[in-house]
This record gives sequence, C-alpha cells and structure tokens, in this order.
Amino acid sequence: MHSDKNLPRRDFLSAGVSAACVAAVARVGYCSGVPAKEETKKLGVALVGLGSLSTNQIAPALQKTAHCRLAAIVTGTPEKEKKWADKYAIDSGSIYNYENFDKIASDDNVDIVYIVLPNSMHHEYTIRAAKAGKHVFCEKPMANTAQECREMIAACEAASKQLALGYRCQFTSHHLNLQSAVREKMIGELKMIEAGFGFRIGDPNQWRLKKALAGGGALMDVGIYALQACRFLTGEEPISIMAQETKTDATKFAEVDESITWMMKFPSGVDAYCSTSYNFNGLNKVVAYGSNGLAKMDPAYSYSDLQLEINGKKIELKQQDHFASELDDFATCIRENRPSKVSGYEGLKDLLAIEAIYKSIENRTSVDVQTA
Amino acid sequence: MHSDKNLPRRDFLSAGVSAACVAAVARVGYCSGVPAKEETKKLGVALVGLGSLSTNQIAPALQKTAHCRLAAIVTGTPEKEKKWADKYAIDSGSIYNYENFDKIASDDNVDIVYIVLPNSMHHEYTIRAAKAGKHVFCEKPMANTAQECREMIAACEAASKQLALGYRCQFTSHHLNLQSAVREKMIGELKMIEAGFGFRIGDPNQWRLKKALAGGGALMDVGIYALQACRFLTGEEPISIMAQETKTDATKFAEVDESITWMMKFPSGVDAYCSTSYNFNGLNKVVAYGSNGLAKMDPAYSYSDLQLEINGKKIELKQQDHFASELDDFATCIRENRPSKVSGYEGLKDLLAIEAIYKSIENRTSVDVQTA
Repeated sequence: MHSDKNLPRRDFLSAGVSAACVAAVARVGYCSGVPAKEETKKLGVALVGLGSLSTNQIAPALQKTAHCRLAAIVTGTPEKEKKWADKYAIDSGSIYNYENFDKIASDDNVDIVYIVLPNSMHHEYTIRAAKAGKHVFCEKPMANTAQECREMIAACEAASKQLALGYRCQFTSHHLNLQSAVREKMIGELKMIEAGFGFRIGDPNQWRLKKALAGGGALMDVGIYALQACRFLTGEEPISIMAQETKTDATKFAEVDESITWMMKFPSGVDAYCSTSYNFNGLNKVVAYGSNGLAKMDPAYSYSDLQLEINGKKIELKQQDHFASELDDFATCIRENRPSKVSGYEGLKDLLAIEAIYKSIENRTSVDVQTA
Repeated sequence: MHSDKNLPRRDFLSAGVSAACVAAVARVGYCSGVPAKEETKKLGVALVGLGSLSTNQIAPALQKTAHCRLAAIVTGTPEKEKKWADKYAIDSGSIYNYENFDKIASDDNVDIVYIVLPNSMHHEYTIRAAKAGKHVFCEKPMANTAQECREMIAACEAASKQLALGYRCQFTSHHLNLQSAVREKMIGELKMIEAGFGFRIGDPNQWRLKKALAGGGALMDVGIYALQACRFLTGEEPISIMAQETKTDATKFAEVDESITWMMKFPSGVDAYCSTSYNFNGLNKVVAYGSNGLAKMDPAYSYSDLQLEINGKKIELKQQDHFASELDDFATCIRENRPSKVSGYEGLKDLLAIEAIYKSIENRTSVDVQTA
C-alpha cells in the first residue's frame, strides 16, 4: 500500500530517541532510562487476589523484576495460602485474608500493594492499602466510576503514597516505539487512529459478566486498551465521544456490554474509531494513519508476540514481560519519589472517557468528555 | 491470531458455492453464472465524460468485455474527439458533446450510456439518457441527494430502461468470496465489520473538492466503498448511524469533508465502524469479525491487487478487470431483462445512508436511516 517514497529516509532502528529506547528496553525491560541498582533492596509486593492473572502472569513476572519481589499474598481461599507460600517462599507472617488485610500496615516486608481483584473492589482496597501506609499498584480498569477514582487518588495523596495503574502496554518496547514513530512524525502528521480489542469470553458465571463486580463488560475490561492506545499515541484527551452498543446474546450479556464501537475527537483534529467485544476473537490492534504513512500493531495488546509495523516495515523488537516492566518502573518511581506516568490520574481519565461512552450509548448523542 | 481449530474443516476453495463462483470468475470475469454467447451482438456503450477514469480504466476495460463495445463518446473537449475516435475506431456519427447529446436517441449504435461525469451531473444525464431510450450505467455516487436518485430511478422506469451503478467491487472474485465466506458462516456468526477507504487527494483545484460538483468529499467519493462493503456483507440496510467529521486543512477542504468516521447498526445485531479520508493514504480495508473467525481484505477497493484472507489463510484468486466484469454483468441483465444487483435502488440506499451520516455530523446525534 505504500511506495518507497513514503518510507523515512533514515532507518528506524538507527534513529536517535528510538534507538536509545530500544537499547533501554533490551537492557532493563522498560524505557524509563533508570537501570537496576544491584545494591538497593528490592521492594516487597503484596499480591491481593490470587486469580488467574496473579497466578499465570504477575507472580511469575515478579520473579523476573529487578526491583521487586513477591513478599506477601492476600487471598480469601485458605487452600491457596500454603501452595503460594511454598512456591514463592512467602513468610508466614505475610499471608493475609480480606478480614485481616489491614494488619498489613505493620508488615515492613511490604512496600507495594498490587490489587488484582474484581473491578468493584479496587476502590475499597486501594483506600485500605493507602491507609495502611502502602504504595498502591492497581489493575485496570481503576474502578467502576470516575468518582471512585477521585477518591482513590485522594486517599493515596493523603497518605503520601504513590498510586499507579496496570497499564502494561505503556511499558512495552513495541508501544513505546510506536509512540515515538508517531511523535517523531515518521508517518507524517497523525490524522486518524483505529483501535480495537476483544475476545470471546468463556465461563458465563464469571465475575466479569456481573455488573456489580465488573462495573461494565467488554469496554471496561478490554476496550480500555484501545482507549488507552489512542490517548497514549496522541498524548491528548478526547474532547467528545459517540458510541453505540450491540447485544446478540442477551442471556450471557444480560448485565454487561457485549460489543461496543465508539469514536473520539481529539483537540489536534485526530479522529479515533474503536471497538471492543466479549463475543469474538481476533480484534487486537491499533493503526495510526498519518499524512505520509501508517504504523500499526496487530496483535497489539496480548501478553506476548506483539507485532509492530511502520510504513510497511516490520520492526523487530525483543518481546518482554509486560508485568515485570511495569512493576520495575513503579518501584523506580517510588525510589525516586516521582509520579508514575500511569498514575491514578491516568486511570481517572480513562474512566471519564468510559463514562462518556456509556452516556453516549444511552442518550444516542455525542457526549463531551469531562476534564479530570 | 487464530489457532487451527478456528479453521473450517473443508478447504475453502473446494467448497460448493464458492468453488463454483471462483470457476465462474475465472471463465467470464464475474459470477452471474451466464457465460458469453459468441453469436450475440455486443452491446454498444456510449462513454459520457472522458476524464482519467474513462481514459485509464473504462475504455481499456471495454476492450476486454465479452458483451460490450465502446460505440460512442460524449465529451466537451473537441481535441479529445479525434484522439478517441482514432484510438477506438469510433464512428464519426457517434461522437457527441453536451449540447447535442440528446441526438443519441437515434443512434442505433448505442445501447448503454455510461455516465462518468462529476457527481452533480449524474442526475441530469441519467434522465436525458433514459429519455433518449438508452439503458444507463452510472458511476458512484449515484447523485448528490437521495431525492435525485429517486428521480433517476423513476425516469429509467418510465422509459422501461435499466439503470445500474458502477459498484465494481460487487463483481470481484475477492469480494464475492468474502461475501460467501460470511454467508456460509466460515467465520461463525458475523458480529462486527470494520471498513475504511481513503487516499491523500492531490490537485486542490479538482472538481472533487467543489461541493456543487461533488456533493460532498471523501465520504461521497471513497467512503461509499466502505459503506457498500458493510451492506454487501450483511445483506442488510443500516438502521441507525452515528458519525463525526474532522478537518485539519480548512483551505483545501473548505467545501467538502476531509475525514469522517461513522458507525452503523444493522438489524441482525451487526455493528459496523467505518472511516474515510481525503488526507492520508493506506486506509483500504474491510474486516469481518465472526463468532468463530475473521475474514479480511486489505487492499479491498483498489483496481487491482486485492488481497483476501479468511481465518488466517490467504485465498489465492485471479485478479480481474473490475470494470469489464461489471459491464458484462450489466449487458447480461439487459439481454435477460432482469434487474442488476447494483440497480438504482442500490445507489439510492447508499445515498440514504450518506445523508444520515451528514445529518449525524451536523446534529451530533444518532440518526435513523430512511428506508428506500
């Protein structure tokens, strides 16, 4: 689709900023430019909620981090306690359940509480963790509502503790290089973004399909990645949003959204059109169209095997553990006492856009997005 | 993105309907199932408007058709008359200009008038051609408004003449096989469609950028392909539409739309999200997401080099001359006295959707699409 004249004259991987970033990713797994200090004690992480994400992704990732270690677990399932303690050598004094969670305040083993609970519980446990004097790392979506996000931010600020979100894609070399390519105008002026993420959800009884626990459906869970990608690439907040929802299985998706498409206007004139679904596979991409080229990722949001292509050229980058990268970045932010780029405000801004999407679906009109 | 388990058990190209279609396309260039009858006289086509589309695509295509021949030209540029007459052996009595066009009524050399004029002139010349007793083949978009489309249909019906539109993609083996794959549920139940077509337009003084001549911008000219693709794949008419427009170059695009994204709801629950632009290249695709797979074309709307992929497998199909295929189909419809599948009603339905898109942009609300 592109002739050679659309290709940038210099080789992408040899370009200034990008090359530095690629090198940084190869070295420490993320692009903050802060290498591991071997002499510094690793920060202790308490994992709250030992479901499949914690089991299959986060706990293994913690073994790969330079700056973090799995120091404590919080679970409501007693049989998981010994299994996890044995597997990860967790101190018996650092095993909690949801009743005695607040005792974590006196656990010097724990610096960071990582919340991997159903969405509706993020608000409560972020605030409890902040009150216990711990930094908080919270899975996405940040909460069920923007108001809850504000309260979570306030609680962490009141406790002088850091709060950051599990927006792992902001730490992948693929997304960072895509962002650089757009910012450095390797595709000319950015004109339009198309982004979508979805999958066919299985077990009809899982919490993700209960509105009270999940807050919403596909949009809250995976559509948020497409929304994030648009905000990440533009560096802007959407001004207005139009959205529509469709439901083809009213039983399985009785409480939450099955499929949503939406459009966003950004201040610079970029338009984005996006989609999400819980009812089919294969939707996993972001495409940035510029006045002089295009850049795309497909898959864009998987845990591994990300693919980046810029102006028709596949960019070869090392695959990395996204969770290890985001956790090491958070630990570095804590040590250096600077806010994370995926701070609570980032989560709040996504929820403001998500609320505008749901409102647009309800009202069948364009909805202006509230400012954070 | 797809595991082997998502692949259909039988090989696509060996499947019943599709294989027949592939074979038909290889034989006669389209899929109507009607082979050329060598004994029948070819239908004479008068080409109205000798711009780049006629020069570079349609006139060469007419040399490849089984059932048509270039019999007459209509041009407002005298120096083109001899050039075309010599090149294509056109009878001196079958050369017209816009003043004496109506004399074509007594030209037995001409069966079909093919209108390749700026959009705003389609209405007038379709009606004049019908009154001259000729069948009419008209480039897309059919007209500037749905009301004009209705008048064009009425004129042709009153004259008992056929009217069809230049929706060439409906005759390509790639689109036909994509449609078959969707209808035969090779991707499971169709859930969502993403479609977009755009290009970076050149000469700022061309008629396509003048509202009075073009009726609109990118949407009218190329966005209509994405709209068509959604209607063609679902076999349904959109119920409601939401759309937004962006303009980053208010000088070049002072009169017409530069970029538009829009969403459509279809009766079966399929959602489509689409885009078009006159300000960047590379947007040229349709993706059909099903409950059990996906099918896509990229490029989808170019004159050649179409690419079709179904459930991760590239489908190898012969590239064909789209214009030759659509013209041979029209000739066959005329001979068999049956309406074309790209009849005037098809053009009207697109204009009804286009009018809903423009209205949604203006009102910033969802707009219900009028029925034809």
